[in-house]
Amino acid sequence: MRLTELSERSGVSIATIKYYLREGLLAPGRRISATTAEYDESHLRRLRLVRALIQVGRVRVATAREVLGHIDDDSLGRTIRLGAALWSLPQEPEPDEQDPAVQSARREVDRLLEGLGWETARELSTLSPVHRSLVSAVATLIRLGYPWDAELMTPYARLMHQAAVRDLDFVEKHPSEEEKVETAVAATILFEPVLKALHRLAQEEESARRYGIE
Amino acid sequence: MRLTELSERSGVSIATIKYYLREGLLAPGRRISATTAEYDESHLRRLRLVRALIQVGRVRVATAREVLGHIDDDSLGRTIRLGAALWSLPQEPEPDEQDPAVQSARREVDRLLEGLGWETARELSTLSPVHRSLVSAVATLIRLGYPWDAELMTPYARLMHQAAVRDLDFVEKHPSEEEKVETAVAATILFEPVLKALHRLAQEEESARRYGIE
Repeated sequence: MRLTELSERSGVSIATIKYYLREGLLAPGRRISATTAEYDESHLRRLRLVRALIQVGRVRVATAREVLGHIDDDSLGRTIRLGAALWSLPQEPEPDEQDPAVQSARREVDRLLEGLGWETARELSTLSPVHRSLVSAVATLIRLGYPWDAELMTPYARLMHQAAVRDLDFVEKHPSEEEKVETAVAATILFEPVLKALHRLAQEEESARRYGIE
Repeated sequence: MRLTELSERSGVSIATIKYYLREGLLAPGRRISATTAEYDESHLRRLRLVRALIQVGRVRVATAREVLGHIDDDSLGRTIRLGAALWSLPQEPEPDEQDPAVQSARREVDRLLEGLGWETARELSTLSPVHRSLVSAVATLIRLGYPWDAELMTPYARLMHQAAVRDLDFVEKHPSEEEKVETAVAATILFEPVLKALHRLAQEEESARRYGIE
């Protein structure tokens, strides 16, 4: 397809597409003359992902380029490719390791993961920004004087694991390795707000069932 | 307790506590002399909630005052009190009802809720900012050309409902009505980042189990 069609089908203006091309977020089309290039479905898919990253994920152009670099690096295994892309997304602020709340959060998270049998999550604990995000979020809870209770959290973690199993089943439905990784990143950015809204709506529904809506 | 102890136990500086008192986010202590006042556990609890709202929820002082107003309004039923407080928190941007993606998102969300039997969520659909947030998040998905599949989403909604049942069981453990509502608001602000990090960590764990970490 030509640039005009790519713009119509993606809903992204021609000027923005040209900007993404200049910034290296989108691979150049196949030159068919001095002034025209031909684009295909992979360009359309990539363009959607770039919009998801920048407009919804609110990542900067440089970060988007980094995420796309990981997605395209087929020398990496799938877990690392997925992980590296997700790790580039905005996370909770870095925990301050000198803070006693962070130290106790780290112990509590480790105990939780041990109880769950999430061995890889424990192994990757020094490496993974996602693990650090969890420690940060738990530390905030502890710092503000709210109780942390691993027994309370375990069932939530199991629910989230059920969600993750569905996430990966969905990702695996896509034919190529590139599409799998792209889908995983897009799903994280686009489904997390859906999931959060569903959770709050479920709270409303459950509250109305228990207490009425008087 | 005196102001000094309130500051020590809450980790909030005396200057900040005085600011919250001036702004009406914290009820005045019981005057025991011209220069000293006495504070109790309810002040400590409220102070934690104010910090959670402002520091973690990133709501403005005016919004925090509004949330606290709803929490304290015991003329309202519990669902409305909980709802009104949660509704004051930051939500997804308002959906533009002229946008075809929003119109189709609204239909899809309605179909999803009908399938789930979430009758109150459907009834409150014109009123609830949480419902609007869900429509907004789904519309973004549709606008970016990602497939919306109610059958795919139903199991996620059921997982979120299981989480909501646990949320309310936890809230109900608190003795007074005021503590219940306070806990519900604090839990929304503080647990949502924990849940999100647990979800991403579960994705990492599941990915490593399926594909290894080569």
